[in-house]
Amino acid sequence: MRVGVLTGGGDCPGLNAVIRAVTKSLIHRCGAEVVGFVDGFRGLIENDTQPLGWADASGLLTLGGTILGTSNKANPFQYWREDGADVSDRAAGVYREHGLDALVVIGGDGTMSIAHRLQQKGLRMVGVPKTIDNDLVGTDRTFGFDTAAMIATEAMDRLHTTAQSHHRVMICETMGRYAGWIALYAGVGAGADVVLLPEFPYHLDEVLRVCKAREAGGQRFTIISIAEGAHPEGGEMAVAKTIPGSPDPVRLGGACQVLGAALEAQLESEVRTTILGHVQRGGSPTPFDRVLSTRFGTYAAQLVADGANGVMVARRDGKMTAVPFAEVADKTKLVQADDPLVRAALDVGTSFGTPALTPDLDTMG
Amino acid sequence: MRVGVLTGGGDCPGLNAVIRAVTKSLIHRCGAEVVGFVDGFRGLIENDTQPLGWADASGLLTLGGTILGTSNKANPFQYWREDGADVSDRAAGVYREHGLDALVVIGGDGTMSIAHRLQQKGLRMVGVPKTIDNDLVGTDRTFGFDTAAMIATEAMDRLHTTAQSHHRVMICETMGRYAGWIALYAGVGAGADVVLLPEFPYHLDEVLRVCKAREAGGQRFTIISIAEGAHPEGGEMAVAKTIPGSPDPVRLGGACQVLGAALEAQLESEVRTTILGHVQRGGSPTPFDRVLSTRFGTYAAQLVADGANGVMVARRDGKMTAVPFAEVADKTKLVQADDPLVRAALDVGTSFGTPALTPDLDTMG
Amino acid sequence: MRVGVLTGGGDCPGLNAVIRAVTKSLIHRCGAEVVGFVDGFRGLIENDTQPLGWADASGLLTLGGTILGTSNKANPFQYWREDGADVSDRAAGVYREHGLDALVVIGGDGTMSIAHRLQQKGLRMVGVPKTIDNDLVGTDRTFGFDTAAMIATEAMDRLHTTAQSHHRVMICETMGRYAGWIALYAGVGAGADVVLLPEFPYHLDEVLRVCKAREAGGQRFTIISIAEGAHPEGGEMAVAKTIPGSPDPVRLGGACQVLGAALEAQLESEVRTTILGHVQRGGSPTPFDRVLSTRFGTYAAQLVADGANGVMVARRDGKMTAVPFAEVADKTKLVQADDPLVRAALDVGTSFGTPALTPDLDTMG
Amino acid sequence: MRVGVLTGGGDCPGLNAVIRAVTKSLIHRCGAEVVGFVDGFRGLIENDTQPLGWADASGLLTLGGTILGTSNKANPFQYWREDGADVSDRAAGVYREHGLDALVVIGGDGTMSIAHRLQQKGLRMVGVPKTIDNDLVGTDRTFGFDTAAMIATEAMDRLHTTAQSHHRVMICETMGRYAGWIALYAGVGAGADVVLLPEFPYHLDEVLRVCKAREAGGQRFTIISIAEGAHPEGGEMAVAKTIPGSPDPVRLGGACQVLGAALEAQLESEVRTTILGHVQRGGSPTPFDRVLSTRFGTYAAQLVADGANGVMVARRDGKMTAVPFAEVADKTKLVQADDPLVRAALDVGTSFGTPALTPDLDTMG
Repeated sequence: MRVGVLTGGGDCPGLNAVIRAVTKSLIHRCGAEVVGFVDGFRGLIENDTQPLGWADASGLLTLGGTILGTSNKANPFQYWREDGADVSDRAAGVYREHGLDALVVIGGDGTMSIAHRLQQKGLRMVGVPKTIDNDLVGTDRTFGFDTAAMIATEAMDRLHTTAQSHHRVMICETMGRYAGWIALYAGVGAGADVVLLPEFPYHLDEVLRVCKAREAGGQRFTIISIAEGAHPEGGEMAVAKTIPGSPDPVRLGGACQVLGAALEAQLESEVRTTILGHVQRGGSPTPFDRVLSTRFGTYAAQLVADGANGVMVARRDGKMTAVPFAEVADKTKLVQADDPLVRAALDVGTSFGTPALTPDLDTMG
Repeated sequence: MRVGVLTGGGDCPGLNAVIRAVTKSLIHRCGAEVVGFVDGFRGLIENDTQPLGWADASGLLTLGGTILGTSNKANPFQYWREDGADVSDRAAGVYREHGLDALVVIGGDGTMSIAHRLQQKGLRMVGVPKTIDNDLVGTDRTFGFDTAAMIATEAMDRLHTTAQSHHRVMICETMGRYAGWIALYAGVGAGADVVLLPEFPYHLDEVLRVCKAREAGGQRFTIISIAEGAHPEGGEMAVAKTIPGSPDPVRLGGACQVLGAALEAQLESEVRTTILGHVQRGGSPTPFDRVLSTRFGTYAAQLVADGANGVMVARRDGKMTAVPFAEVADKTKLVQADDPLVRAALDVGTSFGTPALTPDLDTMG
Repeated sequence: MRVGVLTGGGDCPGLNAVIRAVTKSLIHRCGAEVVGFVDGFRGLIENDTQPLGWADASGLLTLGGTILGTSNKANPFQYWREDGADVSDRAAGVYREHGLDALVVIGGDGTMSIAHRLQQKGLRMVGVPKTIDNDLVGTDRTFGFDTAAMIATEAMDRLHTTAQSHHRVMICETMGRYAGWIALYAGVGAGADVVLLPEFPYHLDEVLRVCKAREAGGQRFTIISIAEGAHPEGGEMAVAKTIPGSPDPVRLGGACQVLGAALEAQLESEVRTTILGHVQRGGSPTPFDRVLSTRFGTYAAQLVADGANGVMVARRDGKMTAVPFAEVADKTKLVQADDPLVRAALDVGTSFGTPALTPDLDTMG
Repeated sequence: MRVGVLTGGGDCPGLNAVIRAVTKSLIHRCGAEVVGFVDGFRGLIENDTQPLGWADASGLLTLGGTILGTSNKANPFQYWREDGADVSDRAAGVYREHGLDALVVIGGDGTMSIAHRLQQKGLRMVGVPKTIDNDLVGTDRTFGFDTAAMIATEAMDRLHTTAQSHHRVMICETMGRYAGWIALYAGVGAGADVVLLPEFPYHLDEVLRVCKAREAGGQRFTIISIAEGAHPEGGEMAVAKTIPGSPDPVRLGGACQVLGAALEAQLESEVRTTILGHVQRGGSPTPFDRVLSTRFGTYAAQLVADGANGVMVARRDGKMTAVPFAEVADKTKLVQADDPLVRAALDVGTSFGTPALTPDLDTMG
């Protein structure tokens, strides 16, 4: 048996742990030969490979990043050749050239979408769900999320003490353009006073009301966890701005600064902003993510061994299962107002910046 | 509404986070008055209390230990008075004296057992499951476990590099007297080569075979994750030994040293042992445990508000639910040979020290 | 003996550890009564105090922030009363009202400058040097710096793995407006390829040359550690910009984005920026900073007990000593080109973005 | 120029960082060819080498352990050949066979002693001081110590919260057989109540007095930091004991258990012991140790380039310098009673377990 492996899309803690688990498991179960494609689908298109034996897969569990490299851009259905056709035939040809029995792709919703289309071209495809944002449908959890949330929580812990010393409003922006899971989870984990998510456009008045209630009470500081895609009601997501004189746009600040400027204008307290950015994507995965990656990877190998096709590994209600690509490709799992974590946050006094999702401030301290 | 809270049994990261969540949630939901009993059931027996208002509950989320104190010993059904009766009536009297509507107890299987008996005496009782060992039946997870497993994993990560440099066999003993969840989880998370659990008495020959195969191959080191209750087949759990001249027994080493001595005698490699001990129980909880504690605590408050009695909060298949004490008291959830994590570990080449639970060494490296 | 304590200026890990050490040491050595002033010099001006006994000082060693609060603004020589005089007399009056024998101020160069002027008004003043930037003259080290550098190093470690996976240029901005010690130390600690400091205005061509040499060689990623005050030769420090429509300026990006935009325009690799911000100032201090804080605090107490006046505690060549305020107030210790750490960085292949401070790229890789 | 590098003695965080710095620096400064000897002096004796180019030295900064391997045993002056001579001539022959201009050895006092004797046989030798124990004479600091002390401090932080919850005496044993630097530094860093070092044999009565004073006061817990070589006055260092029925001795507990048994017998509080062991030697070095390793390594390369011989790199009063082997070989730097850190610890209320080194308990609390 010969099986290919590639990692697609953005970086995510646990990618190497999945590569290790898939590879070792396929060798151990089936004596398979495993081949890695370099830089995601680019390697499949350009036939750029590296062998994955047992020794190559050793020592990867704790390592951040991906030894196979990745690429955000190399979609075989969006690269055109001179004759006007896309390069997906070339990708399929490389698959066949290597005599592969299956290709395991580790990636997010975009990667699953490509996998789905390659399956329709006759390739046998198995997916492993990856995104620090935890916003893939079909699975309770994706690997990388626990690590990203841990990093965001630790940062907010640090901001907490400095907010207290200086009586400041501290705004901490996490990743999450469309779904606010990291900001929610870290906000609950760090005890943020306000959590602002893309799913619930916030009312500036409501955020101000919370900050002022805290100024007025004994607690003269406020911690705000905000997702990068959060925006005021009626406003838009804050996006890349151009630096004058520069030919290319560079992100000059978004959710965090828009809110910061608005609060600074109306509060006595000083306001400070922090954007966590790419530190949330890198480094060694948490034990939770290592274990989840190992379970995902070994289960993917089992699916390959069992002849599955066109499915993504998933964890549902705590158990491993397989979900058809069609159910997950190009979809996003959003935070709902009745999510148990949202309700728990409200119960301990966290506001989501809307009248409907703010606790009764009079009951608090 | 008046509600009491106490923490029973051994220390566990997340206790304060639960106290915070229960207290804030009860105040927010019901305007309840909350009273804490000091040092577990001792406080209930001796009427030793401290008030828990919103401000008291603030700042607890990240704090290790329990601000209420705890006690391993104060079981109201095992403390006898002069007239031969136990002190459970006195405990019930204190409950009534405070005019409590319910008592929330945070603890392990022993605490749930006491809670069950107090309920039978007419007290309204709600439990929150706590143990770093994750061995309570009725719930997928207990808070504290993620933190303990993280600490154990980090320690094994450190032992890994030193084992490699010195070509050593490193044995790392985790907590877990009857159930091996920490040793299993940390073993998978740290990529241990051998995982030894109380549930699967190990064959020394099998452990030696793995170590020697690694000595013979290129990888001249072995990492062994062993639970404190693990023991050789036919042997017994290694328990407290007495230091000559000392009136009291002190733990002089158990699982870890028994195995270490046996391996040292038969391997060329040097063998080193490490017992993690109480560092696994203390300190700030991980974000995972803070979130789980918050969910458990707010759900317990909801149960109290809804009039529940005689139940323990539980997480089943990822969702909060309530389980009757009778189903959980005095029971232990053991690792089964077909647990998915055991199978995943085997797939990546981990041996459990028995012929039945060892991967095919010939396929490896 | 009665002694006052206050913390001035920006937040810094270790402030509470110094408060603890000063307080316990004064009580232990002299049986002193210690009084804390709240929010820095504001507490001295407004006579806002809290007592500091042995129990108050317990448990502070590991705690981030300052239990006394601090203020950036309350300079008694810059607050004017109605009659046109400043409030320094009022501050001196509060000192005398409390019958203080000395006042210990924990702060940076601004705080030492105020302390100097208060000393000239007849108050007995002893200073403890604090700044995460390590840019105070007269002392080898300030507490807080090790923690800030550790946080910056860990962030760069995480960026490292994601830069490698994506073949990116990652720019990480640390604190340091005038002095680049954090960017230098973390850059060396994390193995950054380029380190850009305020002290050495960088040549964009030189930075591009390094990035391109790495693109051309096997290592297709570059890590850049940049201090917030770093700027191109002939350019200026990037400062606060106004968001259109907002009444107040909010920092919209500085050193990091200016460089990012310039590199993005001329490199094939993607460029990503991260600004660490206030996470560098908060949270529990490292063991190094706890020990240094304890040494500083106990030495300050000894100076007070010995009758010293007008001096700041300092560590010089590894030993504690006292330095007159006049030597340290309002001065900044800058990184010099011949600093041993700069030379060590060059030796391992790090460029400082100038032709004079770039290693010979041909010898590398 | 051709230069050899080897790592001797026990494992230590920062070894790889030194290998990287020496190698890169020698290549960058002199275009040197660098060759690594495998497993310390064993590689020199048996001519077991691996090349060290720029690429080999990349990525090592953060890596625990040593890529060259090490050996505690391979002393060329203690291995005898059949003709009764030792193998030092063979080692010298390998040095000459490779046409080396110098050999850089990274190790502790034993390694420096061997280096001294090899120098006397005509080899050019430069040493880099390594020990987690920080007990080498001639240098203020060795790399690895900051990391070991950090690990020990974090462990004691965790024990602190659990001691408080349970009103326990927690004893934490650090490495340090002859010198107690780790136990001292971590004890001060973690705020231990009692610090017991090999240098100051403790009086059990004094330790009991401190514990009982704390039991009697409000603080019903005690944290004790004890070095593995600490022992009661008149007693001996606790050493390996034999498990009955086992052919080989295994360390069954030493300093920690001897004290634990003695305290348990005479205190009301429960007593718990933790031995940190080898976790102190492994894993990624702290930023401090990475920077120090880089400075040591680049300075060693400079010494080699400058023609130095028979010297060890050292940091004295914060500056790099070179110290002749004769001054450092086979010597141990012990903690003195007048060490500033000992005095600081006494000032904040820490007892060293002797009447002379215990603070006045009446002033406390």
